[in-house]
Amino acid sequence: MNQVIETLLNHRSIRKYEDRPLTDEQIRTLVECAQAASTSSYIQAYSIIGVKDKEKKRKLAELAGNQPYVETNGHLFVFCADLFRHDMLGEMEGRDITASIESTEKFMVAVIDAALAAQNTAVAAESMGLGICYIGGLRNHLEEVSQLLQIPKRVVPLFGMTVGYPLHESGKKPRLPFEHIYHEETYEQDKNRLRAQLEEYNKIIQDYYVQRTGGERKDTWTGQMAGMLSNPTRMYMKQFVEKQGLNKR
Amino acid sequence: MNQVIETLLNHRSIRKYEDRPLTDEQIRTLVECAQAASTSSYIQAYSIIGVKDKEKKRKLAELAGNQPYVETNGHLFVFCADLFRHDMLGEMEGRDITASIESTEKFMVAVIDAALAAQNTAVAAESMGLGICYIGGLRNHLEEVSQLLQIPKRVVPLFGMTVGYPLHESGKKPRLPFEHIYHEETYEQDKNRLRAQLEEYNKIIQDYYVQRTGGERKDTWTGQMAGMLSNPTRMYMKQFVEKQGLNKR
Repeated sequence: MNQVIETLLNHRSIRKYEDRPLTDEQIRTLVECAQAASTSSYIQAYSIIGVKDKEKKRKLAELAGNQPYVETNGHLFVFCADLFRHDMLGEMEGRDITASIESTEKFMVAVIDAALAAQNTAVAAESMGLGICYIGGLRNHLEEVSQLLQIPKRVVPLFGMTVGYPLHESGKKPRLPFEHIYHEETYEQDKNRLRAQLEEYNKIIQDYYVQRTGGERKDTWTGQMAGMLSNPTRMYMKQFVEKQGLNKR
Repeated sequence: MNQVIETLLNHRSIRKYEDRPLTDEQIRTLVECAQAASTSSYIQAYSIIGVKDKEKKRKLAELAGNQPYVETNGHLFVFCADLFRHDMLGEMEGRDITASIESTEKFMVAVIDAALAAQNTAVAAESMGLGICYIGGLRNHLEEVSQLLQIPKRVVPLFGMTVGYPLHESGKKPRLPFEHIYHEETYEQDKNRLRAQLEEYNKIIQDYYVQRTGGERKDTWTGQMAGMLSNPTRMYMKQFVEKQGLNKR
């Protein structure tokens, strides 16, 4: 196993950091790694906003659900799906590109581009001995987040990422069985088989929680997911994204 | 610079491979690396389909725009946004989760999850001396692709990824200026500054193409993008995704 694969397999989210900022050089390396990721037809449809300002971080932490590590970390990145510069280059080149950039297709392209870039940042950070955590909680209040970061039309902040010097070890949560995620030739739709895999996985997850909490938590994965998903959240998203001029047609 | 960062910065897409299949062990490692990526609230909302069958690869290559490397490679992965298993676990747990899984929010979660997983696969493959290429062309004809791969409701194939033993070297295309992608504190909306950055970038890209083609190609980035975007493609996507039961509300 090489060093890269070791880094990838060793990933775990870190939720407590030293209050010690990354250097600008570290930040630049992380962004350069992000930029080195593949991008759909060279479109580069994303932006990254770095937040250093303490007060702004405090506000973002509050908006993201009061997670203290959003405030205290080495650096806070916000990854955005971004077709703003494409809107601008349409003007520059005198071409009408509105239909394209308002399409669901290009919204998907922008989300994928941003996520590929972000994952490179995550991997690079971990290879430098730093910890990371994706902050989906930023999507709790995108209107307020967008005001704070002065996000223009054609841009949607997707998630934050905290990076910093870890203050704790963290367990690696077992993933779904390989056979459940990976299919060969065709998508496996045999519900009996899939259900059996989930039930087996539930036992693994239950053991994991029991061991980690001394028996206090006994969740299964399907129970946890059903609980979470039966409570729809962020249902304003469709409207917000459309208001930003994306995913409209 | 460590080996991981070197691998990330050294990425380039490979579009010609030996006709030499990956081993099942290699495939398993690549999928395990995918699974090690972060996933939003543990939701694991993606699947990966591996295609080995020659005839199926030939058809997919055709659907993706006749790119021969989609047919001839070491392995072809298809990454899907997937809430099918969540639909199933809702049934298992007797909970109504339809509103959640039909939301734009959860569609974004699934697309991001799939992309993070895919990028880990890409990075792992490159660390093993293999080359990769994302195949967005799969989205040209998702209806046909879905039939071929027997994709159920709540699943959307997002892109393919070819992996294999490279048969060529490839140049690294210069990315947008660091300052254009990375903003600090707030999104930079000064159009004069952004436009100046794009014009500077255009010169770099033009030089890049002139050098690579002996003067035959002289595209600028903004020209290339305006040309591409003024020709809307895959405009069926919104309808297709909604038909799959995602991004609906």
